[in-house]
Amino acid sequence: MRSRQVHLVKRPEGPPALEDFEVVETDLTGPAQGEVLVKNLYMSVDPAMRPRMARGYELGKPLVGGALGRVLESRHGDFKEGQIVLNRMGFREYFVSDGRGMRKLEPDPALSLTAYMSVLGNPGLTAYGGLMEVAKLQRGEKLFVSTAAGAVGQVAVQIGKLLDCYVVGSTGSEEKARWLRDELKLDAVINYKDGPINKALRAAAPDGLDVYFDNVGGDHLDAALNVLNHGGRVAVCGMISGYNEAGSRTVVRNLSNIIYGGITIRGFAGPEYMHLQGEFAKKMAGWLKEGRIKYRETILDGIDAAPEAMVGLMHGRNTGKMLVAL
Amino acid sequence: MRSRQVHLVKRPEGPPALEDFEVVETDLTGPAQGEVLVKNLYMSVDPAMRPRMARGYELGKPLVGGALGRVLESRHGDFKEGQIVLNRMGFREYFVSDGRGMRKLEPDPALSLTAYMSVLGNPGLTAYGGLMEVAKLQRGEKLFVSTAAGAVGQVAVQIGKLLDCYVVGSTGSEEKARWLRDELKLDAVINYKDGPINKALRAAAPDGLDVYFDNVGGDHLDAALNVLNHGGRVAVCGMISGYNEAGSRTVVRNLSNIIYGGITIRGFAGPEYMHLQGEFAKKMAGWLKEGRIKYRETILDGIDAAPEAMVGLMHGRNTGKMLVAL
Repeated sequence: MRSRQVHLVKRPEGPPALEDFEVVETDLTGPAQGEVLVKNLYMSVDPAMRPRMARGYELGKPLVGGALGRVLESRHGDFKEGQIVLNRMGFREYFVSDGRGMRKLEPDPALSLTAYMSVLGNPGLTAYGGLMEVAKLQRGEKLFVSTAAGAVGQVAVQIGKLLDCYVVGSTGSEEKARWLRDELKLDAVINYKDGPINKALRAAAPDGLDVYFDNVGGDHLDAALNVLNHGGRVAVCGMISGYNEAGSRTVVRNLSNIIYGGITIRGFAGPEYMHLQGEFAKKMAGWLKEGRIKYRETILDGIDAAPEAMVGLMHGRNTGKMLVAL
Repeated sequence: MRSRQVHLVKRPEGPPALEDFEVVETDLTGPAQGEVLVKNLYMSVDPAMRPRMARGYELGKPLVGGALGRVLESRHGDFKEGQIVLNRMGFREYFVSDGRGMRKLEPDPALSLTAYMSVLGNPGLTAYGGLMEVAKLQRGEKLFVSTAAGAVGQVAVQIGKLLDCYVVGSTGSEEKARWLRDELKLDAVINYKDGPINKALRAAAPDGLDVYFDNVGGDHLDAALNVLNHGGRVAVCGMISGYNEAGSRTVVRNLSNIIYGGITIRGFAGPEYMHLQGEFAKKMAGWLKEGRIKYRETILDGIDAAPEAMVGLMHGRNTGKMLVAL
């Protein structure tokens, strides 16, 4: 059968451009004994892919990323036809697998399927793990979240509000700022395109900050380092400000503030919070059903739109999780 | 009576110069009821003073720093004549005090008095607290210490060796490098003036690093961030590479390495380790008497030499703690 997939054909210099990708049609030989054929329904487009485009992903090969699919045909004892599976074979319409790296999902019919790719999925767990495990956020503390209207940020700010925290968020458009202020009820919202983040953050956090959930690095981290209270914690999830620079480097100038501030900066990724998956899934499903967590997704249609989704993501054109429906 | 003291008369631009300081003679009115007159015997010259010269210390006023003195005359119930006291009134020969901020010391006659200003004093405690409390150094781990032949560094590297760690140190002269290698038995020593620290550190730590005790920031921290193993810890005691820059800023470019490295960077100063004072003083006195910790001091003579000591310190002309004997 025929399946289309997205190849990286050129390593981006600066922000990724449409020409860096190519949608290629390929032949798929259907499942052998011990294999399944999966049709992807949704695929994730993730800022963390950007550094791997500089080093990691092979040129002329399909990109790799999270996806949610349905088993079309199974010759594997563990998977039945119709089974929904989370997998790492995004950026292709169909794939054949021996089951390794796939996780069976029993979606709750009261919740949207896409939620398992956003608030209930990795972005939500990243927010939860980063706040609870890495930053050890306490009830009533002062929290700053950058890219607050993004896939991870939208969850982080709302967990902060559920913990009665004073929550400041930054974002890059008036529309997203309004949503954060009016719908998610943040205490202060900064549109970082309006002026220097340093000055805006000082004004937004008059009593300082205890925790900064960092998705940006660079000027955002420098601004937070000027405002963090003694003993403050920074959980670093991403540093998107450097992703389009050579070597994915962000430049930080106020790091010496951590000395007398007794500040801890901790980077984290999957392994640091994966053990929280069970408790998180239960809590988040409850919060969603009670309407205590809201979320947005930006869903583009069809695999041909995947390059556009990646380019748009790096320009902040998404609100909430950026997905492609296949 | 007459006493001489060191004033800051000009805020240094770049490294401090002799002209930034002035030794001024002043009149001292002897102790009133409830006061003591102290003659300082030794005073500390400390890299952490540099940022305070840009902002903190007042111009035309005496500098402030650690010192060890003897009570010459007492009209205070808690202090007898001849009592040795640790105090924060360095950079002056004599001073009158109501006793606040002074700590009585009962020096061990088997140990040198200057040790209480170096290995047994704040620099030693900083090394111990930074490694044990902040970085949680474990037996047999791989440790890198910058300014390894400095007041704090010389203790940190030896505590590392006492814990059977693989210890790498960096320093700025061949003479100091030799001392670290031959006397303190470090596993690898880098003279950072010989070439890029990044390449040298990779070669010196072929199995990576678990802990970096940072006194430098900048290129040293960037190099460590390239070599630290997963879950590595950085205890940041100082960032001397930025002290002579505007705003005491050091520039760090590899910070995003902490994300997938799960690396923790923690700044610390006195409050983070002061509770260890008792256990530290006992352990260190034992180590010194058993000859398990060695140390050097660089002692200049007379208060007129204090500006030279400060200038020399910022150029790495000291080995071990920089002191002035008064």
